[in-house]
Amino acid sequence: MELNLIEGLGLVAACLTTVSFVPQCWRIWKTRKVDDISLSMYLIFFTGVIFWLIYGLLIESLAVTLANLVTAVLVAIILGLKLKYRSK
Amino acid sequence: MELNLIEGLGLVAACLTTVSFVPQCWRIWKTRKVDDISLSMYLIFFTGVIFWLIYGLLIESLAVTLANLVTAVLVAIILGLKLKYRSK
Repeated sequence: MELNLIEGLGLVAACLTTVSFVPQCWRIWKTRKVDDISLSMYLIFFTGVIFWLIYGLLIESLAVTLANLVTAVLVAIILGLKLKYRSK
Repeated sequence: MELNLIEGLGLVAACLTTVSFVPQCWRIWKTRKVDDISLSMYLIFFTGVIFWLIYGLLIESLAVTLANLVTAVLVAIILGLKLKYRSK
């Protein structure tokens, strides 16, 4: 298989895993309910995405850097909403 | 920076973003509540992870393949629990 096709597959994968957080953001924004969402999950995931971001910068991969930058923003919004709306 | 150190950073990133789904699985398993979790998010994320898995196999990267295989299993469990416990 051509390298360009493989890299295209990687880009589709990156777009999907990044875009997937939009409906979760939207759902919380609309319902203001976050009880069933795990804070630990988003804390660990956010830390991981920051590591991916640094990794992307170090290997000078625009795709890895950009995808994780957008994911970091979306996950930070979810984390912020979780902290704002969680039951005290 | 040495390449091994950079690859180590990538592995830490992969471990974190994979392991992050364990507390969400556990939370749903325990509470049986999934109302605040977006089905669309997990459907799109799962599709993305399958693309990452194929990408990892094609570029023959053990780290990408293994991380996404474990993530796929964990996300499939969350998807299954979401479908099982969601309000009809």
